[in-house]
Amino acid sequence: MLKMDRDALQEFLRQAFPQVAQDFTVEEVAPHRIAVRMPSTEKTLRPGGTVSGPAMFALADVSVYLALLAMIGPKALAVTTNASIDFLRKPVAGVDLLSECRLLKLGRVLAVGDVLLRSEGQDAPVARASLTYSIPPER
Amino acid sequence: MLKMDRDALQEFLRQAFPQVAQDFTVEEVAPHRIAVRMPSTEKTLRPGGTVSGPAMFALADVSVYLALLAMIGPKALAVTTNASIDFLRKPVAGVDLLSECRLLKLGRVLAVGDVLLRSEGQDAPVARASLTYSIPPER
Amino acid sequence: MLKMDRDALQEFLRQAFPQVAQDFTVEEVAPHRIAVRMPSTEKTLRPGGTVSGPAMFALADVSVYLALLAMIGPKALAVTTNASIDFLRKPVAGVDLLSECRLLKLGRVLAVGDVLLRSEGQDAPVARASLTYSIPPER
Amino acid sequence: MLKMDRDALQEFLRQAFPQVAQDFTVEEVAPHRIAVRMPSTEKTLRPGGTVSGPAMFALADVSVYLALLAMIGPKALAVTTNASIDFLRKPVAGVDLLSECRLLKLGRVLAVGDVLLRSEGQDAPVARASLTYSIPPER
Repeated sequence: MLKMDRDALQEFLRQAFPQVAQDFTVEEVAPHRIAVRMPSTEKTLRPGGTVSGPAMFALADVSVYLALLAMIGPKALAVTTNASIDFLRKPVAGVDLLSECRLLKLGRVLAVGDVLLRSEGQDAPVARASLTYSIPPER
Repeated sequence: MLKMDRDALQEFLRQAFPQVAQDFTVEEVAPHRIAVRMPSTEKTLRPGGTVSGPAMFALADVSVYLALLAMIGPKALAVTTNASIDFLRKPVAGVDLLSECRLLKLGRVLAVGDVLLRSEGQDAPVARASLTYSIPPER
Repeated sequence: MLKMDRDALQEFLRQAFPQVAQDFTVEEVAPHRIAVRMPSTEKTLRPGGTVSGPAMFALADVSVYLALLAMIGPKALAVTTNASIDFLRKPVAGVDLLSECRLLKLGRVLAVGDVLLRSEGQDAPVARASLTYSIPPER
Repeated sequence: MLKMDRDALQEFLRQAFPQVAQDFTVEEVAPHRIAVRMPSTEKTLRPGGTVSGPAMFALADVSVYLALLAMIGPKALAVTTNASIDFLRKPVAGVDLLSECRLLKLGRVLAVGDVLLRSEGQDAPVARASLTYSIPPER
């Protein structure tokens, strides 16, 4: 039922988005579900040791994208059309962020996923996001 | 850990919001979780037998509100400050809608919950929503 | 450039959505813009004289819908796929609500509009909303 | 009426957020309004010459943040609690992005702003966003 497994997704990221591929590691993928890790790095830090909002947005966005590609195969041109995100708590300083993503809808032209982000080792989520992707038509 | 149980929530709704109390039935309540039923009625129908968007919004909104009150007690003045909702599928005609709500954050001034809505008897959700409530300060 | 003028929109609402047509009056329509009035009624009131959240959601939703139909003609089957709304201030009790809506995107399959809601006679908006509609394909 | 002008905002950014300060230039600031430029750089590019979603999110986020600080003074600890963003069109390749931001609410604990993003020289917006900031209490 999966068109791309963990290795295929990671390799796709490396080829299609070389600038950011090293920021994200696919931890697990299953039909309509994925978990992605964003290692803690200097680049995503903010004063007080917190993770920047745009970095959390990026992790949520890539998680839904990869959950979608796992189901439909490598379509680099799927694009985000809408995102909403709630920042709930300050992430733990110097700790990786982990996403847990569900695809709630996988239609012909639109897919919707939601995501919880957690600092590794914590139960309480640091952010919640939902994103809509537009799926390009087959030629 | 709950300040209000199912009966207390239902009674609160009846007293504080008499215009809408009959539209919603608390099915289950637990710490940080609630399930609410919205019976199918003429009032919420649209052409083609679907449920109106505002009615689904109302079910999501009241679910987070009651999940919050269950934790903090009867504060009619908690108000929604933000909501985002994704409409995923057409609800089944003539069937009750059921919400499943989690409180993701319960802070001093803000609470955030997310909600899945389903037509009774269906697995696939018809809508996903997240709402932020502002909690009034104690006098 | 408009496929439907004020009268055509109001008449469409009356025929396609008879349950709610009397709740909304098109005030002005222009390419990519519309203004809609929601009269203050018992039905939309809440304790303290405020307007209910679902009623404000409904006004924002119908505003984008009618702004879209004005451009593409009467397609009852355009459906809301996403909405986000910020409730900014308490509406003035017993006063009509007015929407001001812009269509920001009118694509082949998706349209996006944003809306400010105000209590009549007030400058400061009571709510801000943005909504995405999915446009049904031509047969 | 402004507590910080263009130079003060730019200097604040340089000191509080040295990693990103060079990514953003305040173009104009007025009460409840700001315009910010994000120069086109390698870092924000994606295949096909488009600007990354997280980079557009970052521009919207910083715009509301600076519009808020202009009104309340330098409070690094104001934090984003919610954001919603609609991606409307592909940005023009190799062209700066410009934001136009309005503060719609400036309360005691919450502020809400909305933002349109455009590729320089284009009328049609590439994205629309709205963000809520939580304002830290005075000690």
